[in-house]
Amino acid sequence: MGSGPLSEDDLIATIFAPLAGPGSLGLEDDVALLSLPDGHELVATTDGVVAGVHFFADDPPEAIARKSLRVNLSDLAAKGAEPLGFLLTLALQEGWTRPWLEAFAGGLGGDAAAYRCPLVGGDTVRTPGPLSVSITGLGHVPRGTMVKRTAARAGDVLAVTGTIGDAALGLGLRLGVAAAEAPAWAAALSAGEQAHILDRYLHPQPRLALASAMRARARCAMDVSDGLVGDLRKMLRASGVSAHVDLDRVPLSPAARRALAADASLAMTIFAGGDDYELLVTVAPGEVEPLGRAARAAGIGLSVIGEVVAGTAPPAFLSAGREVDFARGSYSHF
Amino acid sequence: MGSGPLSEDDLIATIFAPLAGPGSLGLEDDVALLSLPDGHELVATTDGVVAGVHFFADDPPEAIARKSLRVNLSDLAAKGAEPLGFLLTLALQEGWTRPWLEAFAGGLGGDAAAYRCPLVGGDTVRTPGPLSVSITGLGHVPRGTMVKRTAARAGDVLAVTGTIGDAALGLGLRLGVAAAEAPAWAAALSAGEQAHILDRYLHPQPRLALASAMRARARCAMDVSDGLVGDLRKMLRASGVSAHVDLDRVPLSPAARRALAADASLAMTIFAGGDDYELLVTVAPGEVEPLGRAARAAGIGLSVIGEVVAGTAPPAFLSAGREVDFARGSYSHF
Repeated sequence: MGSGPLSEDDLIATIFAPLAGPGSLGLEDDVALLSLPDGHELVATTDGVVAGVHFFADDPPEAIARKSLRVNLSDLAAKGAEPLGFLLTLALQEGWTRPWLEAFAGGLGGDAAAYRCPLVGGDTVRTPGPLSVSITGLGHVPRGTMVKRTAARAGDVLAVTGTIGDAALGLGLRLGVAAAEAPAWAAALSAGEQAHILDRYLHPQPRLALASAMRARARCAMDVSDGLVGDLRKMLRASGVSAHVDLDRVPLSPAARRALAADASLAMTIFAGGDDYELLVTVAPGEVEPLGRAARAAGIGLSVIGEVVAGTAPPAFLSAGREVDFARGSYSHF
Repeated sequence: MGSGPLSEDDLIATIFAPLAGPGSLGLEDDVALLSLPDGHELVATTDGVVAGVHFFADDPPEAIARKSLRVNLSDLAAKGAEPLGFLLTLALQEGWTRPWLEAFAGGLGGDAAAYRCPLVGGDTVRTPGPLSVSITGLGHVPRGTMVKRTAARAGDVLAVTGTIGDAALGLGLRLGVAAAEAPAWAAALSAGEQAHILDRYLHPQPRLALASAMRARARCAMDVSDGLVGDLRKMLRASGVSAHVDLDRVPLSPAARRALAADASLAMTIFAGGDDYELLVTVAPGEVEPLGRAARAAGIGLSVIGEVVAGTAPPAFLSAGREVDFARGSYSHF
């Protein structure tokens, strides 16, 4: 690569090989070789992120790396899958530097260790365009136990993990600050609350600690990446059912509550914004308590927000007993 | 996506879902769910290509799609792996059109069928940069049978499939024509020969038909993507051995022979250029004939080009009994 100080082979040997796990063959081959436990199936997912579209080019390289991996881990978590490893395609922009790349690899390696999902293969290319990262996450589940998006049934309880809306508020704050025009509602938040929502945008928290409980207890699930409103619609459509959602029960952080109190129009950002990476799940009524216990044990909140009902009407969102219309429906990266 | 006529969901449903194979869950979930045959291991590889770096932005969309997939299939073939499916990350540039995308999907679908490697998952994003395609190819082998890059032994016979150098010549011709300066040697080639080398650049031929014979007969292998000279060095280094190569035995197409006769300096392009996507393989002497028979039965040439020897010296390349020095060594996309 003309603009970089390292050949691709050197870069792999010095920067990425130290992160490589079993199955990577030391990144010396063109492939990874992986075993699944007997009786398990492979779960595979891929997500790409592009500077200026999915993250800011001047985000800390560690954070870019972590987010690139975590959006894939979040998909595995929603399916109840245990991570096996990941493959990385890194398209480096002109002018990349070794310290930048070392920090990127540091973030990736930290998460690979924390989530037990080692780097097993990859490809590094140059691009005249913006930095792009595409990761394929591989996981496994005992045969027949994967939690699908198409399995919701009328009568199921609808629940979400964690809190909703923080990341979309963090993005709003970030964009405002970048334009030297912090949104008015930001003044209502403490410095700590502002830091909280900015961090939630930068560092999604894949709920992998819930994977085994999801397999055991959940009927249907997906991760919330494009906003609760839109992603719920997708799940219901895929399952051929509808739902009633009580927006007043959707879990909000103190920061999000304060922002919403300062500006009621933020309801759209909070409920229909994106980048939550929480789990949206349907559960048979008798399984809610056991799943909630498992979540608490993992330090993760689980909140009931409504119920699945028969029919193919769009879901009804209620607040203080009145229906709320989310005309725009969903925010999409695309 | 602002510039496109379709939402991501519409695009997946109308353009990509028709290509999706078993395990894709109809592209309705965020993941693919795949089974390996009992006693098999997973082989996974990923390769990214970027317009203006790995292909020309005005290449036919079918050809871009096919090459993106085939460079991954070539890695699976070299390892003796049978394809299971692939995941696609497509970063679409501003101004893409539906006919372009339909043609791209058509090329992908044609190859997915021809090579029995269905689309099982993916992600579509927009980019302000050039079109980029990252594909993860998944395959499987009976446990313990994958052909590694690190296994060459002194005494092995060194062989390659097909012919070497055509694609690099095709790229040279293509670049010359683009600059309105066709290289002088091109005048020595017939129109058919020019078409042959251009096609070899555009359409690599993954040698998947040899996968089972590779598992049964080959000791060590990789595909030749960055040039025979450089890739051989990588394989020998990974295996801790050296080799003697007789350049006069390296198989050349009639077009490449004619080009080389017209311009002897093309030896560098032919032997050290890239994009061959042929298999470079080491075989115990007794296995050469059975592997050659299998190759012939599959309509693929297999040519002995030298032997693996002990030591860690760089390989020696001989022509007409004299050693040839490839100072530059390898051409790299990176």
